[in-house]
Amino acid sequence: MAIQEFVAKSLGSWRSLRSVHHLAFNYLEQVNSEIQIQALAPDNPAVISLCQQYNIEPSLATCPFKMSWEGESDWDENQELKGSTILVPIPEPDNPSRGKLLRDTGYAETIPAIAHYEILPDGTFVLTTKYDRASAEEKIWFVNPNLRLRVSMIKTSEGRGVTTASFSSEIRIS
Amino acid sequence: MAIQEFVAKSLGSWRSLRSVHHLAFNYLEQVNSEIQIQALAPDNPAVISLCQQYNIEPSLATCPFKMSWEGESDWDENQELKGSTILVPIPEPDNPSRGKLLRDTGYAETIPAIAHYEILPDGTFVLTTKYDRASAEEKIWFVNPNLRLRVSMIKTSEGRGVTTASFSSEIRIS
Repeated sequence: MAIQEFVAKSLGSWRSLRSVHHLAFNYLEQVNSEIQIQALAPDNPAVISLCQQYNIEPSLATCPFKMSWEGESDWDENQELKGSTILVPIPEPDNPSRGKLLRDTGYAETIPAIAHYEILPDGTFVLTTKYDRASAEEKIWFVNPNLRLRVSMIKTSEGRGVTTASFSSEIRIS
Repeated sequence: MAIQEFVAKSLGSWRSLRSVHHLAFNYLEQVNSEIQIQALAPDNPAVISLCQQYNIEPSLATCPFKMSWEGESDWDENQELKGSTILVPIPEPDNPSRGKLLRDTGYAETIPAIAHYEILPDGTFVLTTKYDRASAEEKIWFVNPNLRLRVSMIKTSEGRGVTTASFSSEIRIS
């Protein structure tokens, strides 16, 4: 599957139920949120600026999109989970199933992050992001056009210690 | 990966944290349990009897094993979650990454169930079980030798309606 198809299937509003397994504490955190995924024009100034920040030719940007979320956690009900990020796929020249994914902020940290994606033969989108002292791995797949599942993990930099593993079921609202 | 390797990696005791997403109700159920996976001899009478029940030549059984679990749910704390099942892989003659998996009882129902497994190139074990009015799909993969993740889904028989999706993180105890 090409990245274009995966992004097209993802566009819309989703109701997300996320369970976060804090493995060291055997503790389950619940996050309820609403997620919006909107297409951006390739010549959107924010897309061009993000490409330039990474020294990537903006014409390589393929179906960029914006993801916004708003939700709450049962861990800390006073903490507002709200934010948005711009994501810009840069496929490999000869293989749109693999490439880079530029983001203006990461999920796990608030500094800019560069990630690599690969879409497996069964349609699973796998995203790997390396941070200074940790890495994140995310798998996303569609069960049907209206149900998306997502498994995320934060690993320590050695790759063997996993601190959290989370699972989201995302149901299309519109 | 051949089924032999996958079963060998799975043997042992695991502490499991499972979050069950009841999608229609947007409700999250938490199940804590301990799982034991033990190898069985191919000539174990229960293995032979299970093969015969499905009219399968017992000599085709490959690394059969027994899975036992004991745990509790936050949904109904009075309900005891305890049980065990015998699982018998029957690989395809020319491809040990695919085959049938015989079980004496299913996860979702208490009647005998036949399932098909496939181990994907990235090592993910995918199990599909068809019941009378529903089907179950399960994906299991190892993050490292001591952490196993598992995503399960129950679908209605048409295959598009998903009633529950669950996520387990399983940490090796021994």
